[in-house]
Amino acid sequence: MGNCWATYLGPQKNTNVRVSLPAVCIIWQLAMIVLFGIFIRYDEESDAHWIEHRRQHNITSDIENDFYFRYPSFQDVHVMIFVGFGFLMTFLKRYSFGGVGFNFLIASFGLQWALLMQGWFHALDPATGKITIGIEGLINADFCCAGSLIAYGALLGKISPVQCLVVTLFGVTLFAVEEYIILDLLHCRDAGGSMVIHCFGGYYGLAISWVLYRPNLHQSKQLIGSVYHSDLFAMIGTLFLWMFWPSFNSAIADHGDGQHRAAINTYLALASSVLTAVAISSLSQKKGKLDMVHIQNATLAGGVAMGTSAEFMISPYGSLIVGFFCGIISVMIVFLYFVSAFLEKYLKIQDTCGVHNLHAVPGLLGGFIGAIVAAFASEGVYGKEGLINTFNFEGEFANRGVGTQGAFQAAGTCVSIAFGLVGGILVGFILKIPIWGDPADDDCFDDEAYWEVPEDEEIIHPVLEYNNHMVLKHQDIAESNFSVEQS
Amino acid sequence: MGNCWATYLGPQKNTNVRVSLPAVCIIWQLAMIVLFGIFIRYDEESDAHWIEHRRQHNITSDIENDFYFRYPSFQDVHVMIFVGFGFLMTFLKRYSFGGVGFNFLIASFGLQWALLMQGWFHALDPATGKITIGIEGLINADFCCAGSLIAYGALLGKISPVQCLVVTLFGVTLFAVEEYIILDLLHCRDAGGSMVIHCFGGYYGLAISWVLYRPNLHQSKQLIGSVYHSDLFAMIGTLFLWMFWPSFNSAIADHGDGQHRAAINTYLALASSVLTAVAISSLSQKKGKLDMVHIQNATLAGGVAMGTSAEFMISPYGSLIVGFFCGIISVMIVFLYFVSAFLEKYLKIQDTCGVHNLHAVPGLLGGFIGAIVAAFASEGVYGKEGLINTFNFEGEFANRGVGTQGAFQAAGTCVSIAFGLVGGILVGFILKIPIWGDPADDDCFDDEAYWEVPEDEEIIHPVLEYNNHMVLKHQDIAESNFSVEQS
Amino acid sequence: MGNCWATYLGPQKNTNVRVSLPAVCIIWQLAMIVLFGIFIRYDEESDAHWIEHRRQHNITSDIENDFYFRYPSFQDVHVMIFVGFGFLMTFLKRYSFGGVGFNFLIASFGLQWALLMQGWFHALDPATGKITIGIEGLINADFCCAGSLIAYGALLGKISPVQCLVVTLFGVTLFAVEEYIILDLLHCRDAGGSMVIHCFGGYYGLAISWVLYRPNLHQSKQLIGSVYHSDLFAMIGTLFLWMFWPSFNSAIADHGDGQHRAAINTYLALASSVLTAVAISSLSQKKGKLDMVHIQNATLAGGVAMGTSAEFMISPYGSLIVGFFCGIISVMIVFLYFVSAFLEKYLKIQDTCGVHNLHAVPGLLGGFIGAIVAAFASEGVYGKEGLINTFNFEGEFANRGVGTQGAFQAAGTCVSIAFGLVGGILVGFILKIPIWGDPADDDCFDDEAYWEVPEDEEIIHPVLEYNNHMVLKHQDIAESNFSVEQS
Repeated sequence: MGNCWATYLGPQKNTNVRVSLPAVCIIWQLAMIVLFGIFIRYDEESDAHWIEHRRQHNITSDIENDFYFRYPSFQDVHVMIFVGFGFLMTFLKRYSFGGVGFNFLIASFGLQWALLMQGWFHALDPATGKITIGIEGLINADFCCAGSLIAYGALLGKISPVQCLVVTLFGVTLFAVEEYIILDLLHCRDAGGSMVIHCFGGYYGLAISWVLYRPNLHQSKQLIGSVYHSDLFAMIGTLFLWMFWPSFNSAIADHGDGQHRAAINTYLALASSVLTAVAISSLSQKKGKLDMVHIQNATLAGGVAMGTSAEFMISPYGSLIVGFFCGIISVMIVFLYFVSAFLEKYLKIQDTCGVHNLHAVPGLLGGFIGAIVAAFASEGVYGKEGLINTFNFEGEFANRGVGTQGAFQAAGTCVSIAFGLVGGILVGFILKIPIWGDPADDDCFDDEAYWEVPEDEEIIHPVLEYNNHMVLKHQDIAESNFSVEQS
Repeated sequence: MGNCWATYLGPQKNTNVRVSLPAVCIIWQLAMIVLFGIFIRYDEESDAHWIEHRRQHNITSDIENDFYFRYPSFQDVHVMIFVGFGFLMTFLKRYSFGGVGFNFLIASFGLQWALLMQGWFHALDPATGKITIGIEGLINADFCCAGSLIAYGALLGKISPVQCLVVTLFGVTLFAVEEYIILDLLHCRDAGGSMVIHCFGGYYGLAISWVLYRPNLHQSKQLIGSVYHSDLFAMIGTLFLWMFWPSFNSAIADHGDGQHRAAINTYLALASSVLTAVAISSLSQKKGKLDMVHIQNATLAGGVAMGTSAEFMISPYGSLIVGFFCGIISVMIVFLYFVSAFLEKYLKIQDTCGVHNLHAVPGLLGGFIGAIVAAFASEGVYGKEGLINTFNFEGEFANRGVGTQGAFQAAGTCVSIAFGLVGGILVGFILKIPIWGDPADDDCFDDEAYWEVPEDEEIIHPVLEYNNHMVLKHQDIAESNFSVEQS
Repeated sequence: MGNCWATYLGPQKNTNVRVSLPAVCIIWQLAMIVLFGIFIRYDEESDAHWIEHRRQHNITSDIENDFYFRYPSFQDVHVMIFVGFGFLMTFLKRYSFGGVGFNFLIASFGLQWALLMQGWFHALDPATGKITIGIEGLINADFCCAGSLIAYGALLGKISPVQCLVVTLFGVTLFAVEEYIILDLLHCRDAGGSMVIHCFGGYYGLAISWVLYRPNLHQSKQLIGSVYHSDLFAMIGTLFLWMFWPSFNSAIADHGDGQHRAAINTYLALASSVLTAVAISSLSQKKGKLDMVHIQNATLAGGVAMGTSAEFMISPYGSLIVGFFCGIISVMIVFLYFVSAFLEKYLKIQDTCGVHNLHAVPGLLGGFIGAIVAAFASEGVYGKEGLINTFNFEGEFANRGVGTQGAFQAAGTCVSIAFGLVGGILVGFILKIPIWGDPADDDCFDDEAYWEVPEDEEIIHPVLEYNNHMVLKHQDIAESNFSVEQS
């Protein structure tokens, strides 16, 4: 029936990406191959020389290979990136293919480009000029993709797959730079990426969406919103994000207590934000009914906000408090926007998935929470060595005090916001160039624009006169198929 | 369309939970924060002092932190609790939001309360008055929630979210007490919780359901049952429960051979129950067709029944035998009930998800199987140290014989049943107090009562003459369906 | 509604499996129990004697139990087998139950039979006459099932559950033999099973499908193809296969660098094939639209093709190149077939899931890629010990050169193809015996044949005047939507 729409609303002149999409995919992938050939090698733990490396470093067992410390968390993060983000974006009634499919495309390109960008900034061996990668590199690459996927959430249904790749190319590049400034120059700690991932990604997407504002988007408003089963598909995404968030925040934390503590803190914050999200969701509806949009998003706010402080000694009740307030704030933002249409009416931002309330604000809060927790850290709580370990007060930072560290953490949050906003505006203008095959206003949120969509459920009910329709319809389809098959 | 039903069948006066639900969520969550602040701290493996702890205890590597022994299993268990149980309960055509959503709410509150209750009974340091938590604590908290989630299965579609939280509050409390009696006082072994989780949870839910018996439930019978895609969503739950059950039964087993053996035994028992479930399902239908309800539930019976003996030397063929019979029994119970409506007609129990055949009976069997396997344990099979390890015959239990152990295991099973039945009856009467906003008989199994439900598929092709087809079509189907229902 | 079809097209005389299915399931399961009783025991790492074994072998910590090296990968593989393959086969509009359900049945029987078959060939202790199993045994059993599941993909919708079990019985048997020849006699390396799993399984399924060719299959062509939500269910399968493929290829690789490197290589090859699959998919459609069938399948080709060389030092860019070409080839095959109906018209092969392009061809390529990479291995790249480790040049193979190894790898690929084709033809003729209850041509791809299928969505409002509400409702909602959006 999407076909009907098409005919009814006139041909979609400009969404044909048959040249641009293949060209971009092939050329960029070839570029990746060349750059990987020049720069990327295995690190000593994934290289066949490991057996000699082990002997030289008196490593008693293979189990001490970093692979066994991080691989389970890596796989959980991997699921969050592809199934978590992917299915969270299937909630629209007619854009589920685009939600999960373009998410897949973005992440698959992004992780390759991330290995290079992050490698150049963090793992380039000046002697050999090579970047060495191991399991931690893959986790960081997945993290880096998350920034662009968050941005895609704000643009869902309004951009073409080619634009998705452009958003990713620049998103990953900006990410690597701001990450370098925040983690290396400012020496901030951000194990779960409240600042570098969520805050940056959220504002990056919102800024792009602001530049790409569509005043006539209401023309496809019949496709904004969910249907019963699309909400269930979205719950698959929500739950895999929610369940594996402890792995996300602990994946690259310090071995031992660092990973252990990060998992506990995140687990608690998430549980707490579920209860407050439910409470405020019910409170915000006339009859006290729950809204799936709130459950799908606000329940995750606790995980975002724990991104920075997950590995700190924030204490279990501290984690609950963080989740408590983030659940409330996240739902309230959604609700207020819905009522006042604030974002769209006044800021001219069309935020399809609500990344503002799910990533931008909780990420910002998470950054400042991290700053406060860092500023109040003490040897009494962490122990002398524990404090040095946790904040990595070594080398040139050996004499940095916790107060200073707190100030730098706060500064880091501001850097991530600045990069998101400025970078997003620049990329937004690049995306306005009319060569990317983006959909017309009345074509948004419709998979018909970029996907061969199968005919619908109805067609399988062979009740008699309905069959007549069917037979007709089948003939049509048969023919259309036929013509396709001829082609 | 539920709205229409509502108008047609009279307003839902009492399902407005706009005051009670937020109040309960906020107050209870605040209570959790206060209690966590007073009682809960990190254990030495998740505390920043770990580095000193390591040195003092000559622990050679971070990899020996319990986190690395248990985290992968923990995440699998976590998936079972939220996606496994959650999606298993999406099978109803119009209660999928409530199935997965309230499951989410129950578990998120339950795991916090479980950390406190289990902590008071098992991990309270008399010196400091604090409970210390680590990864094993999180796993046990998830286990504890499972008891209440199983109970929810019997009540699915008939209670309000507030009642869900009441069921959880008491369910977790009762769980912690019976667990203390069974594991500590009776010194039973129950790694996968056949007794403490499944047997207790099953009878707890059935007893509540008996007290809440609704004679006029037939008024919403058009909503009992599945549709094609809701059965597929339920299969997601079934498969994640089935696949990760080896992790469930091995998650808190002894390091090394204990976890290894528990995984193997559960893996085999589950595989075996799939074949017998399929066989009996086909046998029970006139034309030998398979029933999704059987496949979704009976295939899991083997995992439930291995809960106690998974870590014992039951031997691989022993595991297959357990799965073989549990698959058969589980389907036969479903079938007999379906035919005779035994449970509902004679026992006045309305068991929406069939927890009786999936958890109660297999759990009970698992408890007694564990007792028998324990009674026949021998040094020849386990080895001297192995026997002591496996049954933890140390301290005051150093001289307990395997026969005595078997007797205590059997006693433990009875304790879990007693707690389930008595506790369930008490909680049932609490739930009868008319302040919890439970649905009217004609409102059961309908998400409209507690959720903002999106309009349906049909509405996405609002082309005029197409609607006309629709009206026709609906009548046709209504008629054809009618005859179907007569048959 | 399938019922209507049935009456319309004549009764399904021969799909009643009420005797054959239960008989086969029960008898074969009993046989498994007996054979397990005679042959299968725990290995020393899962036996209660482990504690003594540890002391005797000076193993310093429980963490060195193989369980902790492989369990996380095992669970990922387990998910691929049951959810990955299972949901990948739910794409048909009316055969989703059969896709996920029979996949479940096949794998549950197959893994038991695999433990025996592989045990007899690889782990039979001549002294005791027993097979000992541990976590690696479970992984290999899952791998072995994959061969038969791949074959099922080609037969999806056209065979009965009894035939599924027959395909599995012989598939697992053939697998164990060819695996023994390839891995033990030819001493090939094939960690991810490009040869032994994908190449064998693909050709095995295609050969069976060739023997079972149905000239009148067009009679059920209205059921070939997907609907919107069945494509989303299939994406669940695709993504879990895609995400966990690094675990698949590294699950039984060498401890340490072997597993580490295999994961990295697979991760990169998969990412690369996503981009080329998208490119060629868009290029192959008149309007440049993406085809879900391509995304669901071709994106996985990179993982299949890395099966053999994942643990080799193929280098990161080498992995990208493999993914690059496999993505292209895989989509092109699908497309060419679709246009020319080559496979069906000329080879008389009806390949429901496209296993030829997803498993057979990429597996074949993977085998030869492995041969080439092995032939070019050098001490410079691997290090002396690394080379011996990686290719296991020990014992009677201590003096084998890499060139010879490459030749044997190539020979192994040919062996797997031969076993697939010859075995498939034999099994095909066995399946032609008219006792297995396979569906009539006009009954294919319809769950009605073997499942109790619930009535459909529409039927949840089956009251006549209710339809009137509905018409009203459509208007109301149209309005209410409007008002909402105005507000």
